[in-house]
Amino acid sequence: MSRKIRMGMVGGGRGAFIGAVHRIAAAMDGQIELVCGAFSSNPRKSKLSGKDLHLPKDRCYSSYEEMILAEKNLPEDVRMDFVSIVTPNHVHYGPAKMALENGFHVVCDKPLSFNMKEAKDLQKLVKKKKLLFALTHNYTGYPMVKQARHMVQKGIIGEVRKVVTEYPQGWLSTLVEATNQKQAAWRTDPKRSGVAGAMGDIGSHAENLAEYITGLKIKQICADISILVPGRKLDDDGNVLLRFDNGARGILSASQISVGEENNLYIRVYGTKAGLEWHQQEPNTLLVKWIDKPMEVLRTGGANLCPAAAAGSRVPAGHPEGYLEAFGNIYRNFAFCIQAIVAGKKPNPMHLDFPTVEDGVRGMKFIEKVIESGKSKQKWIRM
Amino acid sequence: MSRKIRMGMVGGGRGAFIGAVHRIAAAMDGQIELVCGAFSSNPRKSKLSGKDLHLPKDRCYSSYEEMILAEKNLPEDVRMDFVSIVTPNHVHYGPAKMALENGFHVVCDKPLSFNMKEAKDLQKLVKKKKLLFALTHNYTGYPMVKQARHMVQKGIIGEVRKVVTEYPQGWLSTLVEATNQKQAAWRTDPKRSGVAGAMGDIGSHAENLAEYITGLKIKQICADISILVPGRKLDDDGNVLLRFDNGARGILSASQISVGEENNLYIRVYGTKAGLEWHQQEPNTLLVKWIDKPMEVLRTGGANLCPAAAAGSRVPAGHPEGYLEAFGNIYRNFAFCIQAIVAGKKPNPMHLDFPTVEDGVRGMKFIEKVIESGKSKQKWIRM
Amino acid sequence: MSRKIRMGMVGGGRGAFIGAVHRIAAAMDGQIELVCGAFSSNPRKSKLSGKDLHLPKDRCYSSYEEMILAEKNLPEDVRMDFVSIVTPNHVHYGPAKMALENGFHVVCDKPLSFNMKEAKDLQKLVKKKKLLFALTHNYTGYPMVKQARHMVQKGIIGEVRKVVTEYPQGWLSTLVEATNQKQAAWRTDPKRSGVAGAMGDIGSHAENLAEYITGLKIKQICADISILVPGRKLDDDGNVLLRFDNGARGILSASQISVGEENNLYIRVYGTKAGLEWHQQEPNTLLVKWIDKPMEVLRTGGANLCPAAAAGSRVPAGHPEGYLEAFGNIYRNFAFCIQAIVAGKKPNPMHLDFPTVEDGVRGMKFIEKVIESGKSKQKWIRM
Amino acid sequence: MSRKIRMGMVGGGRGAFIGAVHRIAAAMDGQIELVCGAFSSNPRKSKLSGKDLHLPKDRCYSSYEEMILAEKNLPEDVRMDFVSIVTPNHVHYGPAKMALENGFHVVCDKPLSFNMKEAKDLQKLVKKKKLLFALTHNYTGYPMVKQARHMVQKGIIGEVRKVVTEYPQGWLSTLVEATNQKQAAWRTDPKRSGVAGAMGDIGSHAENLAEYITGLKIKQICADISILVPGRKLDDDGNVLLRFDNGARGILSASQISVGEENNLYIRVYGTKAGLEWHQQEPNTLLVKWIDKPMEVLRTGGANLCPAAAAGSRVPAGHPEGYLEAFGNIYRNFAFCIQAIVAGKKPNPMHLDFPTVEDGVRGMKFIEKVIESGKSKQKWIRM
Repeated sequence: MSRKIRMGMVGGGRGAFIGAVHRIAAAMDGQIELVCGAFSSNPRKSKLSGKDLHLPKDRCYSSYEEMILAEKNLPEDVRMDFVSIVTPNHVHYGPAKMALENGFHVVCDKPLSFNMKEAKDLQKLVKKKKLLFALTHNYTGYPMVKQARHMVQKGIIGEVRKVVTEYPQGWLSTLVEATNQKQAAWRTDPKRSGVAGAMGDIGSHAENLAEYITGLKIKQICADISILVPGRKLDDDGNVLLRFDNGARGILSASQISVGEENNLYIRVYGTKAGLEWHQQEPNTLLVKWIDKPMEVLRTGGANLCPAAAAGSRVPAGHPEGYLEAFGNIYRNFAFCIQAIVAGKKPNPMHLDFPTVEDGVRGMKFIEKVIESGKSKQKWIRM
Repeated sequence: MSRKIRMGMVGGGRGAFIGAVHRIAAAMDGQIELVCGAFSSNPRKSKLSGKDLHLPKDRCYSSYEEMILAEKNLPEDVRMDFVSIVTPNHVHYGPAKMALENGFHVVCDKPLSFNMKEAKDLQKLVKKKKLLFALTHNYTGYPMVKQARHMVQKGIIGEVRKVVTEYPQGWLSTLVEATNQKQAAWRTDPKRSGVAGAMGDIGSHAENLAEYITGLKIKQICADISILVPGRKLDDDGNVLLRFDNGARGILSASQISVGEENNLYIRVYGTKAGLEWHQQEPNTLLVKWIDKPMEVLRTGGANLCPAAAAGSRVPAGHPEGYLEAFGNIYRNFAFCIQAIVAGKKPNPMHLDFPTVEDGVRGMKFIEKVIESGKSKQKWIRM
Repeated sequence: MSRKIRMGMVGGGRGAFIGAVHRIAAAMDGQIELVCGAFSSNPRKSKLSGKDLHLPKDRCYSSYEEMILAEKNLPEDVRMDFVSIVTPNHVHYGPAKMALENGFHVVCDKPLSFNMKEAKDLQKLVKKKKLLFALTHNYTGYPMVKQARHMVQKGIIGEVRKVVTEYPQGWLSTLVEATNQKQAAWRTDPKRSGVAGAMGDIGSHAENLAEYITGLKIKQICADISILVPGRKLDDDGNVLLRFDNGARGILSASQISVGEENNLYIRVYGTKAGLEWHQQEPNTLLVKWIDKPMEVLRTGGANLCPAAAAGSRVPAGHPEGYLEAFGNIYRNFAFCIQAIVAGKKPNPMHLDFPTVEDGVRGMKFIEKVIESGKSKQKWIRM
Repeated sequence: MSRKIRMGMVGGGRGAFIGAVHRIAAAMDGQIELVCGAFSSNPRKSKLSGKDLHLPKDRCYSSYEEMILAEKNLPEDVRMDFVSIVTPNHVHYGPAKMALENGFHVVCDKPLSFNMKEAKDLQKLVKKKKLLFALTHNYTGYPMVKQARHMVQKGIIGEVRKVVTEYPQGWLSTLVEATNQKQAAWRTDPKRSGVAGAMGDIGSHAENLAEYITGLKIKQICADISILVPGRKLDDDGNVLLRFDNGARGILSASQISVGEENNLYIRVYGTKAGLEWHQQEPNTLLVKWIDKPMEVLRTGGANLCPAAAAGSRVPAGHPEGYLEAFGNIYRNFAFCIQAIVAGKKPNPMHLDFPTVEDGVRGMKFIEKVIESGKSKQKWIRM
């Protein structure tokens, strides 16, 4: 018999951004219940945050270590099923490792970890423990991204020749981190963010999106990585030439100084028979540019979409679904898989459609290589 | 101390559309918990539906009457706080009336009722019982609709001179109701839908939107109401000339035979200083067309929005929010108000921003008058 | 042997708007040469305007009467072939009549005349003289409008059920005519414009567009015609319910107080199989909303357009063509027809694709009836 | 006293594309008259083409050499004032050189020449002869491109930090040149096109646009230049990292295998205060993305544009102007300058706003360097 899956959260206390997103994404489909959390490294703040979320006091923990150990000792029909990690990059590894070691499934915000070593450790641990690990490269949760992948993988657009993906934002156009803005502060701090700034924060989303849709691997990169706001410590703009393993060419750009841009991730994929175009800010539309007939406009909720795209929408076409629903698709698939496991069944392969620790390792490699290329005089760097 | 608000649902069993929407909208912000339901007039289907939703058996009721009585007898810290009614139009009145009479707050899908008599009854009952009543004219839940209202009401666009609102859909372009399509069947059936088809189902949304944004009242209407698909029993297309109480002119059109249209509600409001334009299918954008400077593009989550618009979004600009979030805004405000009441406080006036039974009565009047006008040879009918 | 066609112009002197448009439209394709003009009722201004246009002095006339008589007496291989009339409405009839009577073909700006009587006179005269008469309802010159007509007339979208057309502008949102603005002054003056303001100036374009595309006739109208800017003498806003001769329903709105709107004419036509949508401000795109497959985007210059649409574009797709090219299509077809006549041949039927005096009479009828309906208490007025 | 300027054309015979564009662009404003031409290297085809254009037989020449010599011997008030060269790249140099040497001004299609040597020769000759030379990098003729340049150069968007420009087309997605398609044949033939295919044909437009708007010079490039259609002889796709002389970063991409793309040139320029975005396929709109206020939408023909943008439009806002009008702006400015010279005056500096031989030399440098970079293992190449 099916039941709601129980979530414990690490991070996401008062004032956090992405923690709230994870909670909405987890809650919306009625498959997941938030039962506990270690919402802050500050125990008092953690408690207050839990109270805001209507949690019982005794399940608002002072630290993730405390949470994992305490929950492990709770009866099976009470304790959390998985941990959701929504902390800055340097605090992914610790809770992820401990959760896995103690038998809990994990959802982790991206990028996977602070560096490659941590990433590979987690990869091994997931394999060893046979637990589920979802990485919230949330943009692949959009139905029309799934449709795009479908059209590439079924050969509908022919062989891929060119990929253009950009992720411009403008919110770091000034030295915001000097103003105590919390989101900016950790993202621009090498001690918390890792070797990369914009490239880790958003460039890795573009990389994941390109490989997810095309099914290709980026084989070589040539990057120009810059700090364009004086005083900043990590890259805020990067432009990368790409060569894929099938010979396709590409461009990937990520920027947080593209002033006036909100969250303007887009991708265009050109095959031999058609081109695809998708924009995150209008996510319910997928343009299909045929070589021999008029452009078609595919729409979330529309007829004739692939099963994954159809499953990824909740309402009929014309009722716009957005960022939170795409994020929710990762959580919903993840919950369905755990429900299967809890019921002693194999997860439905369709529900295994969420980014994993493998995507995380791939993303960490991209981050490290793109920064290496930015510093190198050599034109092409192998990934 | 704040707690989650407990919801019981009437309707919304397996295969329903709007019931699932209400559940997602209610769940997403973590303020409301679905605790019980009478999901179908078929007791067995109601139970199965409740099981799908991970509810305990004993709170899956066979009828709304059973639910209301049983819940009333549960301890105060267990029983539902409000009833959410998501049935076809002819089954709004019964559960709403009984819920109110037994002290439960109500959320009801629109239109308010089957006819005007029922509407007025409910209006009186709400007043008498001093309970909260929210009507899900969900389109007013969008942040940019709230911003539009703000700009009109603060005089920013000057005095309103003209309003154009249209709600075209195409899904009833053929006689779908003859194919056993459940959504079509009751909406085109005078015994379940009431005097109007498209005008009740979607025209009333356009009317509500126009009056919500402008703060004006439609004073006179002149309607051409048609059945354009042979064999249909209720209107599937209607075009209405409007005159507002301040002298402004307008057009309202609603159609379900506008083939190829998804859910293309839009509104344009022209004042003496600026015009506003908003489209439901791209809901995060509000165009402001100034008389003396370039058009501006306001965006959900952007800076400098009015408090209601700012409160109505969950994520930064560029992370698109959609239909479900707008719907959720009605539930969230409703929950906040009940939390205040439960805590013995007055609701924050900002949280009282949801459509009420008054909007419902207004909507029923519009429906009845527009159908009357459609049949009349008289040019103008007073509302 | 083919030659350039020679044009004489009435009106369009310094400071005029539409005269310059006609000259560009006539010149661009190298088929028409401006050889003379009576550019102003002020003889000195007429001469100076002609000098600006590099015309010889002796063909810059003091009045249209002088021009027509003088040109008639010039050798056949020198004198003008046709007169282009670009004056305000009340000065269409005089020069058109005299030109026709003296054997010159005519291009005339719309609306055809000051009133219906003049219109019918011209209609008779054209028939009697067997001369060409083009009325510059220029919006039908756009390739994608021709494609839309093609798709309706070939039954591709099925039977037409509903038409929505709007023509909102904002430039008369204040009492501009009080500031000596020349374009506003005559358009709002009943002595120069006729019985209608916005309805004649732009509403008649929308009427023409709807009938051109659908091939249907508007049979009944119900209009709300208003003056919304205090002090104005003619209508600046009008909203009209339409019933077509095949039973289709429709809306037509024209407004010059829709503040912030530029020249936002659009039309949507819904058939039983597909809907069409076209916007004048993005004229190279025609949306086709199919009942059973994804929306298609047809584009000027694209493959697989109908012959008239293909002939109406000069450059490949993606090289945007605009208002002047659409206007030019009327002149080009008109020139081709005169070239045929000059060569003693019948015009190619494809080149007879321009609005004629018949469209002008139809437009005048619309203008008179819509104003009559605006004043009437009767709901429906026959056209 | 002002007069029409007389144009002789080299190339542009029957079946040509860009020749017809030049003729329309030259004709539309009534300042230029086509008086003669050597329209084809095939004398008979040249004559027939001239006849199509209503030219007298004796001014349809068999070769450009014949034309230049014959016209030189005509009386001053009859002979052409300038030569317009619309041949493939390898036939730019010959006629341009000879025209200049014989005292004729020149308009030349881009790129300037077959190689850098020719380009520098022409540069010297123009300087020596003090004649006018316009290169039709026509995209800088658009009003909103001029407005963008104005906003950068006046510091309105702050210091430029990043430039993204792309020029994707899809028409060479297959080996069209194998099918005798004339436009494809010469553009993909190293003997007629030069060292570059797509980079010369359209990449150079993007380069010119970026430098025109920003006023910056590209200092370093790193290019990935590919032939993606098997059997092709010249590049059909190229992606380039840019570094500008002020330290700004950039991306430039040009592709003719981006299947389904029409002529989708766009540019985005991000400064410290605002970002600008312009798309050639919707050329009448310029988006201004402010750092601290809502995005504004500037429009061709709108109020408050810079003088060059205002002068570049012919009709009020909302009457779309396109590719031909932008092209016409180059010709019109060029004609105004010659009119001044003919009148013994200095050209108005505003009319000197057209691309010159200097832009041509710059473009040739870009083409040669980008191809060099494509072949190089060195990351950055200086321009």
